[in-house]
Amino acid sequence: MRIVVAGGDGFCGWPTALYLSKQGHEVTIIDNLSRRKWDNELHSNSVTPIAPLEDRVNKWKEITGKEIKTYIGDLNHYDFLREVFRQVKPEAFVHFAEQRSAPYSMIDREHAVFTQQNNVIGNLNVLYAIKELAPECHLIKLGTMGEYGTPNIDIEEGYIEIEHKGRKDVLPYPKQPGSFYHLSKVHDSHNIMFACKIWGIRATDLNQGVVYGLHTEETKLDPMLVNRIDYDGVFGTALNRFLIQAATGHELTVYGTGGQTRAFLNIEDTVRCVEIAAENPADRGEFRVFNQFTEYFSVQDLADKVSKVAEKEGLQAEIAHLENPRVEAEDHYYHAVNTKLRDLGLEPHLLTDDVLRDILQAVLAHKDRVIQENILPSTTWK
Amino acid sequence: MRIVVAGGDGFCGWPTALYLSKQGHEVTIIDNLSRRKWDNELHSNSVTPIAPLEDRVNKWKEITGKEIKTYIGDLNHYDFLREVFRQVKPEAFVHFAEQRSAPYSMIDREHAVFTQQNNVIGNLNVLYAIKELAPECHLIKLGTMGEYGTPNIDIEEGYIEIEHKGRKDVLPYPKQPGSFYHLSKVHDSHNIMFACKIWGIRATDLNQGVVYGLHTEETKLDPMLVNRIDYDGVFGTALNRFLIQAATGHELTVYGTGGQTRAFLNIEDTVRCVEIAAENPADRGEFRVFNQFTEYFSVQDLADKVSKVAEKEGLQAEIAHLENPRVEAEDHYYHAVNTKLRDLGLEPHLLTDDVLRDILQAVLAHKDRVIQENILPSTTWK
Repeated sequence: MRIVVAGGDGFCGWPTALYLSKQGHEVTIIDNLSRRKWDNELHSNSVTPIAPLEDRVNKWKEITGKEIKTYIGDLNHYDFLREVFRQVKPEAFVHFAEQRSAPYSMIDREHAVFTQQNNVIGNLNVLYAIKELAPECHLIKLGTMGEYGTPNIDIEEGYIEIEHKGRKDVLPYPKQPGSFYHLSKVHDSHNIMFACKIWGIRATDLNQGVVYGLHTEETKLDPMLVNRIDYDGVFGTALNRFLIQAATGHELTVYGTGGQTRAFLNIEDTVRCVEIAAENPADRGEFRVFNQFTEYFSVQDLADKVSKVAEKEGLQAEIAHLENPRVEAEDHYYHAVNTKLRDLGLEPHLLTDDVLRDILQAVLAHKDRVIQENILPSTTWK
Repeated sequence: MRIVVAGGDGFCGWPTALYLSKQGHEVTIIDNLSRRKWDNELHSNSVTPIAPLEDRVNKWKEITGKEIKTYIGDLNHYDFLREVFRQVKPEAFVHFAEQRSAPYSMIDREHAVFTQQNNVIGNLNVLYAIKELAPECHLIKLGTMGEYGTPNIDIEEGYIEIEHKGRKDVLPYPKQPGSFYHLSKVHDSHNIMFACKIWGIRATDLNQGVVYGLHTEETKLDPMLVNRIDYDGVFGTALNRFLIQAATGHELTVYGTGGQTRAFLNIEDTVRCVEIAAENPADRGEFRVFNQFTEYFSVQDLADKVSKVAEKEGLQAEIAHLENPRVEAEDHYYHAVNTKLRDLGLEPHLLTDDVLRDILQAVLAHKDRVIQENILPSTTWK
């Protein structure tokens, strides 16, 4: 299958591109390299050293004989996007190419505006390109479980049947996103649903949980193929922060009580979920939503897990509670349905001690690269 | 009260500014005059001749002694907006300043992107300006009944209690907007709800129906204060189109079967609803939604009403059915709640034959200004 992976230089996109290439698909990466630019802006880095994209794909070809084409450019630049569609004629378009950090979107007005403009308009352009140049192409769009927020009822996969005053309808599941970034994904979802309806586009929205992990079978093949480990207060997730703190002898900093519960999955499941979506395309005109996660944990659970594994490795790892920089419920109901991907064949990789130990060891191997002052939160929601 | 009316040069904004000024409020208009530019772009016009904004406010001062300050500029220009906030220190900010035509947003990719960028980013800027410079200011934001679409259950005012799998929550009402314009309003609503939650902003979202009518007490005072009558396929609503067609001896063109049912209100109620919202501000942190309409009609109902009135005036007015240029249900359930504004004192002006006759007479007086080739739809949703 001819598959474009937009955002193929990033944490999810890169292993997805390799995995799909390995399965024999004809993979093309589009990326504007903005993840690297944001590191520069924030004076931050990945704990693992990341080779230039060109070197990464050359190494991949050297090892596997498989070619991944790359186009360096921006989805907000429609002429560029159109040219890629003309040359590649994609059958599936995997869209990871958005600004994906909640704290980044909350830095200030400029970053909120940038995030919504970049994500919403970029995605609108993809919809128009599909309509104009590849109407059969299946859009596989990365959404987030964060679109739903934390309602006091079960979270369904995109839609919910509502009975109200004696009548019934199946309606889009109400959204309560918790940052300008999460809002941008909600805006995207609404735009895509409409485009499917009026133009007959086929789309799958993967409402993904928080992704953890580092290696996949493919990224392990050579140090030059290694994936990112983000840990700073802006792009790092809680789990990575805890691992870095354990590796560098600092307290694990839980925001607030740590009761915040979120959905998670392993990066090895991310790549497989995208493959499952591609192999089972949505129908023409269908806007399909899959909740893409395998387990949920509270922030306190994660800290406890990391602390336990770190101590077994002979590291100090005490848990401390910081004032929460976000505005969010710390004690709430959380139950979300995630059967659609399982029904299509997903076999979850769970968050075991071995997985944590693997990441911890990668961090220890590159410990000197950690910039301590980047770990704590610098952005507040207020 | 110090009230900013953003979009105060437009069809709803102008009579609202006059009405609030008449009630003794200190009114400031912000406008980038884009409604006039879109007329130029589309080679279109208002049937009634519209004086320059400066002449309009000068005439208002001459007649009433009341001053309306004007700032010509764009909400997307944050430095400009901030300067207005610094000088005016608004207690209420009435936000009409968006691209408000569904067909305009559907012309092509550029117009879709323009509409979402202009509306969503402009509104984000307003939220940041309130947060930064006037945290007590009450945002009165114009939304649209079109945000809800046509669900098969009753439409509530912004929120709905959902019972699901034995649990309950009150959640944002699910949205199914029908154009890139309507989508932009849904995006705004989500952004405002979040800003209220994290920053304690007070906001009222007026989900307005289709507005008809022409005169208010204030716009009637002098020909230079007259309001717009838009009738072209892009900015005109069905009711205006039918009136212009009746006045110029053409068939009334109903899109499809005409079974599409929508919520309506008189421009005289629009101005009063804004006053009601301003006099009864939302609490700090509250995101309140009022459904702002008084009656609903199907498109066929409207054509029948216009035809009847026109024939009494001795005009020919046969009804014809065109292929529907939009993608929308033509036969659907429609029932929406609208008690909140009524409870706060709204006394509706209904769509009587007299109201129709009034508009028809204004059209007949300026019949020579009608550009025939603009009446029929030029934009399709496909």
